[in-house]
Amino acid sequence: MKHPVALAQLIDALRTLPGVGPKTAQRMAFHLVQEGRGGARALADALQRALQAVRRCDRCRMLTERELCSICESSQRDRRLLCVVESPADVVALEQSGGYRGTYFVLMGHLSPLDGIGPEQLGLDGFERLLDGGGVEEVIVATNPTVEGEATAHVVAEIAKRRGARASRIAHGVPMGGELEYIDGSTLAHALAGRQSIG
Amino acid sequence: MKHPVALAQLIDALRTLPGVGPKTAQRMAFHLVQEGRGGARALADALQRALQAVRRCDRCRMLTERELCSICESSQRDRRLLCVVESPADVVALEQSGGYRGTYFVLMGHLSPLDGIGPEQLGLDGFERLLDGGGVEEVIVATNPTVEGEATAHVVAEIAKRRGARASRIAHGVPMGGELEYIDGSTLAHALAGRQSIG
Repeated sequence: MKHPVALAQLIDALRTLPGVGPKTAQRMAFHLVQEGRGGARALADALQRALQAVRRCDRCRMLTERELCSICESSQRDRRLLCVVESPADVVALEQSGGYRGTYFVLMGHLSPLDGIGPEQLGLDGFERLLDGGGVEEVIVATNPTVEGEATAHVVAEIAKRRGARASRIAHGVPMGGELEYIDGSTLAHALAGRQSIG
Repeated sequence: MKHPVALAQLIDALRTLPGVGPKTAQRMAFHLVQEGRGGARALADALQRALQAVRRCDRCRMLTERELCSICESSQRDRRLLCVVESPADVVALEQSGGYRGTYFVLMGHLSPLDGIGPEQLGLDGFERLLDGGGVEEVIVATNPTVEGEATAHVVAEIAKRRGARASRIAHGVPMGGELEYIDGSTLAHALAGRQSIG
């Protein structure tokens, strides 16, 4: 059966969300026009507001409502350390870990020649400007441990070294709470190669 | 770390969608304010339009943009058959099965005393009015085969019978393509009790 036009358009719009297929989009749309009408209005308003207000930090390209994000504005952060990640969500994850007091630079994803994403599309020019501004001593490359992420890490590290900064890569190894028996061979090989002395 | 206000509000609004938790909402919000800005605008517009245009069919309470839905308006449908379901999504599923040429009545969910949903909240008054209008010979109760759905089915069938219509319940049994070995005992018991002669 065909949905009413306005409902079909809402379903199509919801399908552009990441991880939302046709069935989920239909379920969401039905919810929004039935019991969720208040939520639908709030969502429409929040979308408009976010599109107007949210922009990228001039320094690190994190999402913010001002020229600089709260991390770049903070006097508590160590500007000698610069952690390079693929997306704003990675900044959130690293901040939640609580183990990092430096600053960030957010790439626009990772190198992906097939999708037409080369060094220019990643925003590496902004990264170079940041390094040229001086003060960064170590660049910690925290791109994802995927093929594309590793290729991106290589390019980022090269740029950092050319500008006189040390470059490091986050450790690959066995995740905390994992069981060796169920961990893939590639991860185990990295865990062995990256072993650290104890005691 | 704290998100910018507009972003936090967008995440909160997305969390009201069914099946969307905090992580998914954050991922959707980041997508919408980054590469999905066009989609975000389309979604905001579609929400506004749907809230204005989409209403319930006067006869069956299905979602529509007119007074009557396309099924109730159609001259091809058998008005002697009335199938009662819990939600508009159930109408879509039954229509996609292609096996039904009657009309529908959409309840507002199922009986759920703990959530304060009694017979009045289900919209059973509209169901009674529809039956009083005359012409319905059989009410097919297609509420979900859950405890609440069965209780709802009982109430619906009682009303139908009191108004002189036959009441029937959709068959419970083994789903097509399923393997007996993996089907729960309650379903198997229903499949045995509801067996039909062959040959």
